[in-house]
Parts: sequence; C-alpha cells; structure tokens
Amino acid sequence: MYNLLKGKVGIISGALDKNSIAWKIAETAHAEGAKFVLTNAPVALRMGTIQELAEKCNTIVIPADATSIADWENLYEKATEHLGGKLDFALHSIGMSPNVRKKKDYGDLNHAWTLKAIDISALSFHKMLQVAEKMDVLNDEASIVALSYIAAQRTFPDYNDMAHAKAVLESIARSYGYRLGTSKKVRINTVSQSPTATTAGTGVGGFDAFMNYADKMSPLGNASAQECADFVISLFSDFTKKVTMQNLFHDGGFSSMGVSEDVMDMFRDEK
Amino acid sequence: MYNLLKGKVGIISGALDKNSIAWKIAETAHAEGAKFVLTNAPVALRMGTIQELAEKCNTIVIPADATSIADWENLYEKATEHLGGKLDFALHSIGMSPNVRKKKDYGDLNHAWTLKAIDISALSFHKMLQVAEKMDVLNDEASIVALSYIAAQRTFPDYNDMAHAKAVLESIARSYGYRLGTSKKVRINTVSQSPTATTAGTGVGGFDAFMNYADKMSPLGNASAQECADFVISLFSDFTKKVTMQNLFHDGGFSSMGVSEDVMDMFRDEK
Amino acid sequence: MYNLLKGKVGIISGALDKNSIAWKIAETAHAEGAKFVLTNAPVALRMGTIQELAEKCNTIVIPADATSIADWENLYEKATEHLGGKLDFALHSIGMSPNVRKKKDYGDLNHAWTLKAIDISALSFHKMLQVAEKMDVLNDEASIVALSYIAAQRTFPDYNDMAHAKAVLESIARSYGYRLGTSKKVRINTVSQSPTATTAGTGVGGFDAFMNYADKMSPLGNASAQECADFVISLFSDFTKKVTMQNLFHDGGFSSMGVSEDVMDMFRDEK
Amino acid sequence: MYNLLKGKVGIISGALDKNSIAWKIAETAHAEGAKFVLTNAPVALRMGTIQELAEKCNTIVIPADATSIADWENLYEKATEHLGGKLDFALHSIGMSPNVRKKKDYGDLNHAWTLKAIDISALSFHKMLQVAEKMDVLNDEASIVALSYIAAQRTFPDYNDMAHAKAVLESIARSYGYRLGTSKKVRINTVSQSPTATTAGTGVGGFDAFMNYADKMSPLGNASAQECADFVISLFSDFTKKVTMQNLFHDGGFSSMGVSEDVMDMFRDEK
Repeated sequence: MYNLLKGKVGIISGALDKNSIAWKIAETAHAEGAKFVLTNAPVALRMGTIQELAEKCNTIVIPADATSIADWENLYEKATEHLGGKLDFALHSIGMSPNVRKKKDYGDLNHAWTLKAIDISALSFHKMLQVAEKMDVLNDEASIVALSYIAAQRTFPDYNDMAHAKAVLESIARSYGYRLGTSKKVRINTVSQSPTATTAGTGVGGFDAFMNYADKMSPLGNASAQECADFVISLFSDFTKKVTMQNLFHDGGFSSMGVSEDVMDMFRDEK
Repeated sequence: MYNLLKGKVGIISGALDKNSIAWKIAETAHAEGAKFVLTNAPVALRMGTIQELAEKCNTIVIPADATSIADWENLYEKATEHLGGKLDFALHSIGMSPNVRKKKDYGDLNHAWTLKAIDISALSFHKMLQVAEKMDVLNDEASIVALSYIAAQRTFPDYNDMAHAKAVLESIARSYGYRLGTSKKVRINTVSQSPTATTAGTGVGGFDAFMNYADKMSPLGNASAQECADFVISLFSDFTKKVTMQNLFHDGGFSSMGVSEDVMDMFRDEK
Repeated sequence: MYNLLKGKVGIISGALDKNSIAWKIAETAHAEGAKFVLTNAPVALRMGTIQELAEKCNTIVIPADATSIADWENLYEKATEHLGGKLDFALHSIGMSPNVRKKKDYGDLNHAWTLKAIDISALSFHKMLQVAEKMDVLNDEASIVALSYIAAQRTFPDYNDMAHAKAVLESIARSYGYRLGTSKKVRINTVSQSPTATTAGTGVGGFDAFMNYADKMSPLGNASAQECADFVISLFSDFTKKVTMQNLFHDGGFSSMGVSEDVMDMFRDEK
Repeated sequence: MYNLLKGKVGIISGALDKNSIAWKIAETAHAEGAKFVLTNAPVALRMGTIQELAEKCNTIVIPADATSIADWENLYEKATEHLGGKLDFALHSIGMSPNVRKKKDYGDLNHAWTLKAIDISALSFHKMLQVAEKMDVLNDEASIVALSYIAAQRTFPDYNDMAHAKAVLESIARSYGYRLGTSKKVRINTVSQSPTATTAGTGVGGFDAFMNYADKMSPLGNASAQECADFVISLFSDFTKKVTMQNLFHDGGFSSMGVSEDVMDMFRDEK
C-alpha cells in the first residue's frame, strides 16, 4: 500500500460481487487511500453483495440506471455531497447485451437489442461524461477509465454484438477525451482487459476453453481481476497525467501475439 | 474501360446526385460491365436525381429504408428477380446523424438521436448482410464494401457522433466478414475515404477549411469521389479475393502522416 | 485477362522459381499487358529458373545485388533502355535473414547478421527508391509495392529477426511514400501476405503446422501466391491511385481475427 | 513520494543532462525508493553532467557503449555487484542517427549510417536484453522500458531514418517481450513520448515550430520530460504487471487526434 490515491475522490460503477473487476478496483482504491461512492443498477444491487463492499470501503451505494440522465444527475449530486467536493476519478464498468444473454446468433440479431446493448454498454459512458461536464463535477486533471475488450479490434465469434458496443465505448473515450482534455486537462482511457472469470464473463459460451486459449496465447498469461485493478489504480494516480484517448491493453501480451509456441504445439501435435 | 466487372451483378446504395461517391461507383461499375440495381431511401429518391443515373446505367431504382428488414427483403427479392440471379457485389453508402444535422454539440448529444445515427449508418449494414444471408442471395466469393471515415480511429471534433457510427460500421465488417468468409468465401471490407465534397459531406461545419487541411496533410492530396469509385471497383473485381475484414484507407496517405511540410509551413510562418 | 496494365512498364524483383510470389506477379502482369524487366541477385539467378520466366514474359533478366547502389544504377539504366522509357511500377520482393537461415535462436542473435538482414530485406527498398529518384526513372503516378508480413506488427517466434526487417520495410514505404507522393504522385505500399509455401518460405521451421494454423485462423483461408499476384496487379493498375503509405493485409482475414471457431475447436477438444 | 519502487533495483541508461528524460526518470526513481546504477556512452559522459546526477541519487556511473556486447557484460557484472543482486527494472533511452546529425536528406541517405542508427538506437536494446538473459541478471517480473516516438507509425519528415530505428526498437520490445514473458514473467514495453525539448531533441530542424504544432494538436498539450518520468515509474511499479509488448503513447492525446480545433483555426484564418 502506497497511498497512491490519497486525497482523491471518485465514483466506481459496476461492482456486483467478489469476482467483479470493479469490486477489486474499489478494494484497491480504498487500500490506496481514495474515497469514493459505489454505484450500480437497481437490479444489480438486488442480485449482488455490493453492500458488503460498501461497508468494507466505508462508503455508500447510490443506485443508478446508467442509461438514465436523471439517474446520473442524482448520482453526481449525492456523490459530491457525500464526498464533499468534485471528483478526481471515475470508473465505467458497465456492459450487457440482450443478444448475448439470450444466445441470439450473430446471423439472427435482434437489432433493437443491439441498440440496447450499445445504449447500456457504451452510450452510458457518454451520458456519464456529458452529465458530469454539464454539472461541472469533475476536478481539473481528473482521470476517467472504462473497461473494454479486444473484440473492439478483432473478431471473437462468441462476443457477438458486444464487439460493436465496445467499439463505441472506445470511440467515446477518444471523442470525449479530446473535449475534456482541452477544457479541463481531464484524461479518458479505456483498458482492454484479458478475458476474466467474472460472474458476467462466465456467461459467455465455451468460456473456459476460451480462457485457456487466451492464456496460452499470452506470454504472461491472462491478467487477473486484481491485476486489472492495480493497473486502473495507476491510471487514476498522478503518474499517468498525460496518457489520454488511449485504449490500453492489459492482457499479458495477447494483443501483440501472432502465435505462441504453446498454441503452435497443439497444431504440431495434430499432424 | 477493362470489363473488370463483366458478368457480375450487384446492388449499389446511396447514390443521391452527381456528387455522391455511390453515383460515381455506379457509373464506373456500369462502364466496367457490371449489372446492378440502385437503391436509396424514399426521401432521398425525392430529393435527388437518381432516376437519371438509373437510365444512364440501364437499370432500375428500388426504394428501401435501410433500417427496415422488410425493405431489405423486398429489395433483395426484386433485385435478384431483375438481375436474374444472386449477387456478386454490394455497396453500403448510407449515413446520417440527426445530431450532426441539427448541429447538436458533442457535449449536448441527444442520445436517442445517436442511437438513430448508429441504426441508420451502421446497423443498416448488419441488416443488409443478415437479410442477404437468410435469403441466400449472395454468390460465393461475393464482395461487399461499405464507405467509412478515419473518424472511427481518430478524433475530428466536427464529425461528432458519426465517429461512433463509423466505428460500429467497421466492427460489423469484421464480424460479418468472419461469418460469411467462413461459410461462403464472401469478403467484406470498409473503405476509409478522404473527406469528399459530396452533397452530404458539405453539410459539416467548416468543411472547406477542413478539406484544405486534409489536402495539405495528404501527400497525394485528397482522394476524389471518382478515385474512390475506381478503388471500390477494384475491390469488387476478381483481383482482391483474399482481402477481407479490412478497413482500407483511400486517402492519399493522410492516415500515415504525422505532419507534412505543407502543414508545418503554417506553423513556421506563425512564429 | 483485362489488359489492366496495358501500356505500363516496370521492374519485378525476386522471382526465383514457380513457387515465388514474384514469379506469379510477373506472369500475371504479362498476361495483363505490362512490359517489364526481371531482376534478382546473381546467386539467385544461378539457383533458380528465372530465364524460363523471362522467355515466357518475352523479357530480359538484369542481375543486381539489391544492397548495391551501383547495381541499382545499372539496373535502371538497362531497364529504361530496354523498356524505352520511365517506369510505371516496381515490385520489391527481397528478403533474407542469416540468423533465420542458420537457425540462430532469437536469444542468441548475431547482430551483424541482423544488420545484414535489415540491409538486404529493407534498406534495399530504400536504395531502390533513392536511386530511382536520383536517376529520375519513375513516371508520375507510378506504383511501388513491397511484400511484407504481419510479423512486423505481432510476434511469431519462428520469424526471428525478419520481424525487425519487415518493420523497417513498412516504415520505408511510409517515409518514401510521403516523399515521392508529394513530388511525383507516386504511391508506395506494402502487401502483408499470408504465409506462402514458396521455396523461401518453406525454409522456416515447423512451416507446415504454421500454415495450417494460419489457414484455420483465416476466414477465407490462406491467400495463395497467385491471389497475391492478382492483388498486386490491382495496386499497379489505375484503380488504386490514391492508396499510399499503407500496409495492406492480403491474408484471408487473419489480421482481424481474435480467434476462429476452427481454432477454438482444438481447445475444446483438449479439455 | 509514495515509495512506489521501494526495494527495487535497476539500470538507467541515457541520462546526459538535466533536460534528459532519463535524468528525470533517475531523479524520480530515486525519490520513489529505487536503487540503480546509471550508464551512458563514454563520449556522452564527457559531454554531460551525469556525475552530478549520480551523487544526487547516491549511485555510480558505469560507462558502456550500448553497441558493445562486452560493455553490456561489464555493465551487468558491475551493476549487480554494486546493487547486491539481480535487476527489477531497466530503462533504454539511447538513440542517435548520423544521417540526422549530419543533416543528410532522406532522399540522399548514407545507408551505412542508417545501419549505424539502427545498431545504436535499436539493436542496442536487443543486446541489452540478450546479454541480460544470458547472464541471468533479471529478476522474475522485472519491467523493461524503452523510449520511442510516433514516427515509428506515421511520417514526420524531419525525423528521417530514426523512424526506421524506432520501428525496430518497438519490434524488439514485442519479440523479446514474448520471450522473457514466457520464461520469466518479465514485461517489456516502449513509451512513445511527445516531442521533448531535450538536448538531443532540440537538434532536429525546425524543432520549435514542431513542438508548437504537436502541442496544439494534443488535447493535454505535449507531455513534459518529468511527466514521462512519472509514467515510466508507473511501468516499473507493481501496478502494471500484466502490461507487456505494448507501445504506450504518452503524448497528451496526440496519437488519437485527426485534427484539433486549435490546428483548424490556422486553416480557417488562412482562407
């Protein structure tokens, strides 16, 4: 523990249970001296154990539907009141695709659901930023991070239309990063994380085999939720003030691999 | 004229008037021996002069709202009937953002309109492909092209939420390119074209100054609509059968420039 | 055959035998109406059957060591004399790594050999362009292509230090593409081709297993030498005049894949 | 000060004087609790004031020609002896191009000098890693960083053949990152920094105008040497253990910009 976030206040969305990346981020931010409020959708609050996390971090949970402007307004009002000032950091860890959840094939998408996936998983990030800007709740040099996945760049069949939502998410980080960078020195980045065995992640079909593939392709192996949390903390800290509008791969090297010896071994054996 | 598309049949969307890239593509495809039908939204048909193009190319116009599954079904039924068989190529040149059109600031987006921009400009591409696959109207080795813009990768403030729509468009090209590549050897690419003085393009604020900037940054200058048409024809031809899931920059070199001497000259003068 | 290169003259380097990509490019350029001279290193001329190709294409072979400025000068002098004018296209298909050839491990590189690999495989491209510029042997709007590989972007262990040579090759395409684009509208691109079973390619260890992997990862399968030739012809043609400073993946979609179902199947079976 | 590198030991190359990025990295690493040795070329030691830095950081300077295997061997032997153990981090900040220094035009390169630039600026990184691996002087989970520049991806005319050297540098980070990641969990990254007014940087022609351009294009403005140092410290820390084989842009957003309002203003005024 280094007190890396001492004196900083923020918002952390998306913690559901102990497997959530956002949960680890909250725990680590707390250990590093940050103060923050937690938020998640009302339905997620009922399913998860976030109150336990709130107690552990000595904070409160403010329910918010991330697609609702009014809920963001309420969240920022309550958060800045509770925290006693403007925000230094914020985490966006929100994603859901009805097509994925209901196992719709990519060749049989319900397009209204795809729009819903984009609204929930990506436009919620724009809303988060737009409302923050309008209400002027961000301190200068604040740091914003959203969690993404490499399906935004390359095709993973099972990822379905979440690939499109993540492409929008990363595009918003660039566009809004320009805007708030120019006006307030705020930086905005996405972290493109290894596949992670969260409660959400494990819903994807064939996930164990896929985790194994990604692990064998990554020189350092898959990054864990805790390691992702550590990296996000570094992005919230004062050590990364000029990194912005980037999609940062936190993936043990997966994104830079053409093929690993471990994966090739399977093809050699096959012959 | 080389008869480069002799024997090929297809669909060309998005021709509005003589300034449209799609218009040039239709003219050039016709000159290169292709047969095709034209399509555009009913409202665009009323505004433009597409009938003139249809006569020139000895073909018909089939109106279709690109966001309507039923309209795509009707289009494919009529098109394959008119053309006497399945399709070898298709052009997606469809884009509209209500936020851009109504000059909404990026910090004051109407998010329902952003979803509408994504639905019209990007999900229409998925619908085009999904309906084509379900109706089995594509020949093996068909070539599909959609027109994109580098705002999908980098920030151009005036491009607003169309940046997000283009990011989705390019993501769909990858995801559906995998799907139809595997099943039918169909290739799907996007062409990321220089800013072009189409009737649509010129609606963007400060467009002339921006065209000048892009031209000065591009070693070959901005690519014209006719040059874009030529490039798209090459992608429809048999010379590019293994190019797929790519976003191809047709931009005179803009995308690979850090800075040009011409742009630096302005900064030197300033001092 | 479309007479796509009718009236165009050029230089094709790197044809060794029937398996060479450059051989197929020469055959196809000939079929498409181009006139050109062939060139290769003196040692390669002794090993291969390039004279057979020259007869078939009704042309001559001019030996040249691609690392020698004097040889490039001699080549251009003889070539323009033989062809009766300046050049419209040129192919760079030259690569050799002593470390790869002598199976030096990447952790035990002979760095003098790495410099030699870069000199032969990449700086030869700069020499080719620099001498051409100085001697003014390129027509306006000429098209230059060099063959590359995705190891320039991602790690393939067996590719060893050729990865670095290809990174330089692609960098030269950008830098010289800016220079000659601005001065003479010349375009310069690299084509990043699937692994190809050329006489050169098959020297790499475990190549068959690797070809199998790449094929299973690519929705359209690996691109063949003939398909690469077709694509290069399109880049030499008038249909691609504003494409420059690009690295164009001609790989059946490999570069845009995260994982394919075919590859995942092997990981599912394993469990 | 957070003690972020407490207990870590390493090597820092490239500090020349107070303007050097490496100088700031050394100062910051010292402030964060690291122990390290400094190194630079004998000629640089004579020109600079590195002894002053060594005293400040309570350490020694070990001269080494970065192109010499023997010098790396000597350096590692002395360094591990002085530091009492293996290394946790290392910085590569070494670059020089004779063609740039002697103002050779890119169209008139001395290719032997280009090889020299690549040997000094890029292969030195491979030598640094290869000797470290052979002598087994790196601890598991060590972090290696090399300083790069966006000219590796995009063309900046004045950067000349250093663009090619940086392309090799980044390629080595990937290739060796795979190798040492797999065997020892070591991570290797490059930091692509804003143009920086170091004593080395200011040698490039028109540098002030270029700094101004980059600053106006970057939403957060150019990153300073101190800010770069902070970022590198975060990469040496335990917060970034799964980031590897990446080129990380530390540039105030420059790399993700198409055009900024500040740059467009100059084009608007022009008209």
